[in-house]
Amino acid sequence: MTSLYLIRHGVAIEPDPQVPDEGRSLTAEGRRKTQRVAQRLQKLGLVISLIHTSPLARAQETAAIFSETFNCGMAEEALLAPGGDLGQWLTWFGPWQLEHGGKQKAIALIGHEPDLTAWAEQLLWGEVRSVLVLKKVGIIGVTVPDREPFMGQGLLFLLAPPKMFGDV
Amino acid sequence: MTSLYLIRHGVAIEPDPQVPDEGRSLTAEGRRKTQRVAQRLQKLGLVISLIHTSPLARAQETAAIFSETFNCGMAEEALLAPGGDLGQWLTWFGPWQLEHGGKQKAIALIGHEPDLTAWAEQLLWGEVRSVLVLKKVGIIGVTVPDREPFMGQGLLFLLAPPKMFGDV
Repeated sequence: MTSLYLIRHGVAIEPDPQVPDEGRSLTAEGRRKTQRVAQRLQKLGLVISLIHTSPLARAQETAAIFSETFNCGMAEEALLAPGGDLGQWLTWFGPWQLEHGGKQKAIALIGHEPDLTAWAEQLLWGEVRSVLVLKKVGIIGVTVPDREPFMGQGLLFLLAPPKMFGDV
Repeated sequence: MTSLYLIRHGVAIEPDPQVPDEGRSLTAEGRRKTQRVAQRLQKLGLVISLIHTSPLARAQETAAIFSETFNCGMAEEALLAPGGDLGQWLTWFGPWQLEHGGKQKAIALIGHEPDLTAWAEQLLWGEVRSVLVLKKVGIIGVTVPDREPFMGQGLLFLLAPPKMFGDV
């Protein structure tokens, strides 16, 4: 039973004809908010063993902040680019979990909407229902069973917008 | 579009043949943790307009803490006792919302498991799937549309265990 955290990238600069979409960086405020969320989650005791990130700049920059805060490795994962397929990712995850998974292990997936909620919904109830709301730097936590099948077998234990991790 | 917060009662004393189940109170630690969660949610800007609570002591005591923290009214609701029917509650909620609902309005429902996750799941996808995990003093946030039908039409924007609102 490994946990998966699906985390949406932070606020990026507006689309700009001069900048390819995949090159849009986080804004200064987006970076600050991402750091704040990552730091609070780390202090709350969240564990992240490994980060997979979409290759787009705004996701990579978000992942780098989480990787530094949680002191864990990160790897680019093409399937986390917009439109990527969960089923394909699970063919990597199944064997990884058998070797490295467990109760205190978690993989964070940094990517985009509507893909992340679609992945979470497929894990929870086997199909996309579009009923989960994931804000930028919001987080979804799902536990998945030790072995296949994974689709429709997950449990949802966390879904929160960044303001739930604000300074008050 | 009104928000519903489904909140599970705090940790109560263990079952005891001398005490009827409906009379079990929160423990001192359960009361402290409930206060901590309520206070942090209030500081984070959560709004609660009205509380409906199960008539059981552990729910009523939880509701009293939220009512005091959020400075809002609370009413006993028999349908929030174990086994209560969401459909029946919605026959009260529909007219209430037409008169009092809106974007900044929210009702908190204080009750028990597995009923609260069953209610949330019926609002989200029209049936119970048992995939949501709600700890004691955990919270689920669902927005529902302005008018019927409500079942299967909700959106999930929050699900969190109390440790996400801890002091760090």
